[in-house]
Amino acid sequence: MRVAPKLAGEGRRVVVTGAGGYVGHQAVDQLLALGCEVHTLAREDSNIAGVHVHRADLLTDGDLTWQLAAIGADTLLHCAWSVAPGRFWTDPANIDWVAASLRLFRAFVSSGGRRIVGVGSCAEYDWTGSPFVEKGSPIRPSTLYGNAKAALGGLLTSFARQESISAGWGRLFFLYGPREPRGKLVADAICTLIAGQRLATTPGLQRRDFMHVEDAGRALALLALSGVEGPVNIASGVCVPVRRLIERIEILTRTSELVDYGARAPAPGDPPELAANIVRARDELGFVPRFNIDDGLADTVDWWIKKLGVRTDAERA
Amino acid sequence: MRVAPKLAGEGRRVVVTGAGGYVGHQAVDQLLALGCEVHTLAREDSNIAGVHVHRADLLTDGDLTWQLAAIGADTLLHCAWSVAPGRFWTDPANIDWVAASLRLFRAFVSSGGRRIVGVGSCAEYDWTGSPFVEKGSPIRPSTLYGNAKAALGGLLTSFARQESISAGWGRLFFLYGPREPRGKLVADAICTLIAGQRLATTPGLQRRDFMHVEDAGRALALLALSGVEGPVNIASGVCVPVRRLIERIEILTRTSELVDYGARAPAPGDPPELAANIVRARDELGFVPRFNIDDGLADTVDWWIKKLGVRTDAERA
Repeated sequence: MRVAPKLAGEGRRVVVTGAGGYVGHQAVDQLLALGCEVHTLAREDSNIAGVHVHRADLLTDGDLTWQLAAIGADTLLHCAWSVAPGRFWTDPANIDWVAASLRLFRAFVSSGGRRIVGVGSCAEYDWTGSPFVEKGSPIRPSTLYGNAKAALGGLLTSFARQESISAGWGRLFFLYGPREPRGKLVADAICTLIAGQRLATTPGLQRRDFMHVEDAGRALALLALSGVEGPVNIASGVCVPVRRLIERIEILTRTSELVDYGARAPAPGDPPELAANIVRARDELGFVPRFNIDDGLADTVDWWIKKLGVRTDAERA
Repeated sequence: MRVAPKLAGEGRRVVVTGAGGYVGHQAVDQLLALGCEVHTLAREDSNIAGVHVHRADLLTDGDLTWQLAAIGADTLLHCAWSVAPGRFWTDPANIDWVAASLRLFRAFVSSGGRRIVGVGSCAEYDWTGSPFVEKGSPIRPSTLYGNAKAALGGLLTSFARQESISAGWGRLFFLYGPREPRGKLVADAICTLIAGQRLATTPGLQRRDFMHVEDAGRALALLALSGVEGPVNIASGVCVPVRRLIERIEILTRTSELVDYGARAPAPGDPPELAANIVRARDELGFVPRFNIDDGLADTVDWWIKKLGVRTDAERA
């Protein structure tokens, strides 16, 4: 008789906040696939397949210790945040989320939790210093969002050391993929071109590390289940010009001549390159991205075509 | 007819948190002397001369916006924190105070407030880099307390810039003076020697910037009423060996041979010097300490003698 190999997450009970969100949703799928029992705290009644949903508002509820103790999870993966496209860099709600996150971490440890993983950002780094390495690259955020994430990550690390619990901090770079909110680069480019409308972009020479959101969710899930301490860059390790993405989306949407490259000026001070060193994720989490940029964008365009109910050439034929 | 000169704080309405505390109490006295209308938020009914007391618990109450709007202050001086002697370096309550402070700052700005001053610490700096200058000395705290203060100060600065309000951050060094809690160096030395008991200390060679708490309160009051942005060291500018303080306390308490210098080992990693550059406070706040260490300790010993009801030589005569 053959015994099925034990999954990495079997016997692990994990609380995921923001489980219905863009990244959190993917992390949940990966944790479930790894055999975890997944719980979430949600403001509203919601139905997430395979997830135990508990009603709680992280921003306004009082002490969550007893609710978390009743769940009895050993691990917390905290994905919830205010990330309204465009606005999140400067949103004063960043301050509320730092406060809410700290209260959540305290309550989770008081409830008996032993491992906390939070979601950070490449915006924590000094953007003049690309490529970024977790240990060595200076932390010098230039936005309220970056400051909030850097402050929370630093406090989590210090708090965990003091309380003798384990804590990791996944620094996301640039994401794209299914369920991306409108107002973000790739989602807007795909939807505009699918609709046959003109797209005004910057020249697109700035190089960024773009990662498929499913890969990001898997990396966060692996980080949550690991014992890796401190910051870990979560990125593809491949840095491409933004124009490279748009050109690929033109091909995938079978459009041409709709993009006005250079019609929009780059944002002032936009750095030419934001690249990630991903050695730590590879060596310590065993994480390798599944999607390259071409396949990842194809997957994303397919998702939008289904969502928007666009008839494909085959269906039209 | 001579017109009295207008006081710096006339027409200013200031909310002070921690107004009954060791430093906050002194800041309140100075703000009142400068002509301010002073309000405070206090957990318990309390009576502070000249201060409007409002009931609120910063750690557990919900949104304080409406309460603060009813007060209608333009300036917030936030002194409240958890500072149990010995324990505060590692106290997980530091996390609660960061969260509570952020919620307070948000509510104060929502209520119409225009100036926030918070209380930081020399523990925010990389302690290998003495003397410390606000702009230039690296921030690399080694304790949870230092991390909490550094994170809060950084977030306050970033948040204020985003919201176009004004914010200052007063970094306190080492304080002594009336009402110092037992468990702190100077208070314990004075009380032990007044009681005629033996005092076990380190060799006392480590040099620290010690400041009389009344001076600290005055500097914070001046910072609150100023428009100075960002961190300001609040210190005497004079760095002395700890032994120098104890020897002065021996003289003031008319004791000798009661101190066992070197009976206690210095704390591991205790830096030889923690000195402050105070040019910014002097030039931008016009702040000059009133007490030198000899007069300041004399004032402190007098206060303890009164408090403990010790009969002086004159009374005994």
